[in-house]
Amino acid sequence: MGYRQGEKTIILNEKPKIKASVAVVGEKEQQGPLGEKFDIILTGEMLKDKSFEQSESFMLKTAIKKAISDAGLENSDIDGIFSGDLLNQCIGSNFAVREFGIPLCGLYGACSTMALSLIMASLSIESGGFNTCISATSSHFCTAERQFRKPLEYGGQRPPTAQWTVTGSGAVLLTKNEAAPLPYIDSVHLGTIQDLGITDANNMGAAMAPAARKTISDFLRDTKTKPSDYDMILTGDLGFVGSTLLKNLLLKQDDIDITNVHKDCGIMIYDPKEQDVHAGGSGCGCSASVVSSYILKGLNSGEFDNILFVATGALMSTTSSLQGESILGIAHGVNFKSGKK
Amino acid sequence: MGYRQGEKTIILNEKPKIKASVAVVGEKEQQGPLGEKFDIILTGEMLKDKSFEQSESFMLKTAIKKAISDAGLENSDIDGIFSGDLLNQCIGSNFAVREFGIPLCGLYGACSTMALSLIMASLSIESGGFNTCISATSSHFCTAERQFRKPLEYGGQRPPTAQWTVTGSGAVLLTKNEAAPLPYIDSVHLGTIQDLGITDANNMGAAMAPAARKTISDFLRDTKTKPSDYDMILTGDLGFVGSTLLKNLLLKQDDIDITNVHKDCGIMIYDPKEQDVHAGGSGCGCSASVVSSYILKGLNSGEFDNILFVATGALMSTTSSLQGESILGIAHGVNFKSGKK
Repeated sequence: MGYRQGEKTIILNEKPKIKASVAVVGEKEQQGPLGEKFDIILTGEMLKDKSFEQSESFMLKTAIKKAISDAGLENSDIDGIFSGDLLNQCIGSNFAVREFGIPLCGLYGACSTMALSLIMASLSIESGGFNTCISATSSHFCTAERQFRKPLEYGGQRPPTAQWTVTGSGAVLLTKNEAAPLPYIDSVHLGTIQDLGITDANNMGAAMAPAARKTISDFLRDTKTKPSDYDMILTGDLGFVGSTLLKNLLLKQDDIDITNVHKDCGIMIYDPKEQDVHAGGSGCGCSASVVSSYILKGLNSGEFDNILFVATGALMSTTSSLQGESILGIAHGVNFKSGKK
Repeated sequence: MGYRQGEKTIILNEKPKIKASVAVVGEKEQQGPLGEKFDIILTGEMLKDKSFEQSESFMLKTAIKKAISDAGLENSDIDGIFSGDLLNQCIGSNFAVREFGIPLCGLYGACSTMALSLIMASLSIESGGFNTCISATSSHFCTAERQFRKPLEYGGQRPPTAQWTVTGSGAVLLTKNEAAPLPYIDSVHLGTIQDLGITDANNMGAAMAPAARKTISDFLRDTKTKPSDYDMILTGDLGFVGSTLLKNLLLKQDDIDITNVHKDCGIMIYDPKEQDVHAGGSGCGCSASVVSSYILKGLNSGEFDNILFVATGALMSTTSSLQGESILGIAHGVNFKSGKK
């Protein structure tokens, strides 16, 4: 069984291995700097079916199906799917998995969901109750815009701090039944809400940066490691504004300098000059698609050895924002290792 | 570590003990048949603060705070909170826990959330990563009505199959650090989506009954037990329509007769003649408040010894319903034992 190191970080004993990972994205994401890394590109905003929401579910379903088949498994081999998304009542995930006949743990962590699902799948494997699980999530520009902001047809102007919701999904297949050397999850860290009173829904990076700061700082302290021990400290979707803030916060409050190893999925996924996304990418599908492709494939090939992935989420709804509530930040941490050393 | 028995049921090794459980409800719930069992009654629809949503969070926060203090613990003793609710982006839970400084696993299982949170807290304790956790959830009549149906002021008429969303919350404190004989969780069963094509959002019971049938049938088969082994097979909120359907389905499809031991939280919580709730109570807070009071206190006093709790959820949103999608059913199972025998 796993054990707690320090305050909150859990060092896993089973070290769940990553046997397959799949990223399915839209056209804009294919046109970005990581375009070649993604597994499947679905074209058009209406990727499938008759609504944006059904398209999002189709994208997520496609990722999960391919992860299961890439691992050489069948639906009946999977003990559980851990999934959630940004849509009201998580319909993206629920309708994506409805035909699989696999037990579902529905999660909600806003844009931190990919890390949250990896944590809960890992702990479920660690418990002995599950052998093989799927962690998955998705987001879609058009479903997010019309739910959280304005109908697309309205054509509202976006301020420079706003981020662009990634149309993308990721699915990771975790198992303990695997002898081959594969990337694995070494430790996990469930995050705690940070509320600094940010109320600007067009500046999610600022709301999430304090949560990322706390999780990174706590993780490094708990594990007695330092930034240079990692090939990468990878945040989910802080974007340009939030990433700058995170680095400043860590330096000032904790005397930790992550400048040399920090990357952010929201910065990496789009070309800031060519793709007009203002402060970068966001959404559950942002870190899900980057981690399921570039990161896990890089760990598998030996390009990377040790990555701390910290996905951030902005916990709010249109109702809470209209009622003047602040945007709560949370950040969940997952430490991937390559299994090659 | 736990082990899988049969297809999906997980027999826990750690048998997490229930050290405290608290139900906080509204006035209508106090006036029902279980009124005296609840711990705290908050009066008025606007229980606190300036909105229904903030009132719901306040109710959930009150339940969690009291569970921690009843157990003689402090916030820093709690390794994680597992919580979700019916509101868009689970703002009920997120704002309830924001000040606790406790790691949060956000969940979404519609009205099955209490069982889902007990399962995930149990597996996290079983993993060795957590010692003491809170499982919690809530619902509020006024937040649910205006989000899922119509503004309250509209005064829409409710059909006979409609259920009444419970204004209530429940919090259960689970721990493995306890020598005293206390009720515990013996086994858990993560549910699988069942989709029988029901599209009537005013008949949730019918959408959820097939999922309850599957979980109960699978659980009894996996554990080689029969209905008479239990003091109660307790469903979450099928109400009158769904409960009748469940009993018929189990009898016809599985040759299992649960008539003598079946109870439903949605039927128990209101007086069907006096309280005008049509098909019964519903909402995450329905089974949460009944389990956290009547059920767990009855297990603690020795009134009950062995209860199979199967909470059902209807996975849908107003968007999915408007797009003509069916209502997906899911049911998660938790087996409580008294620890007295």
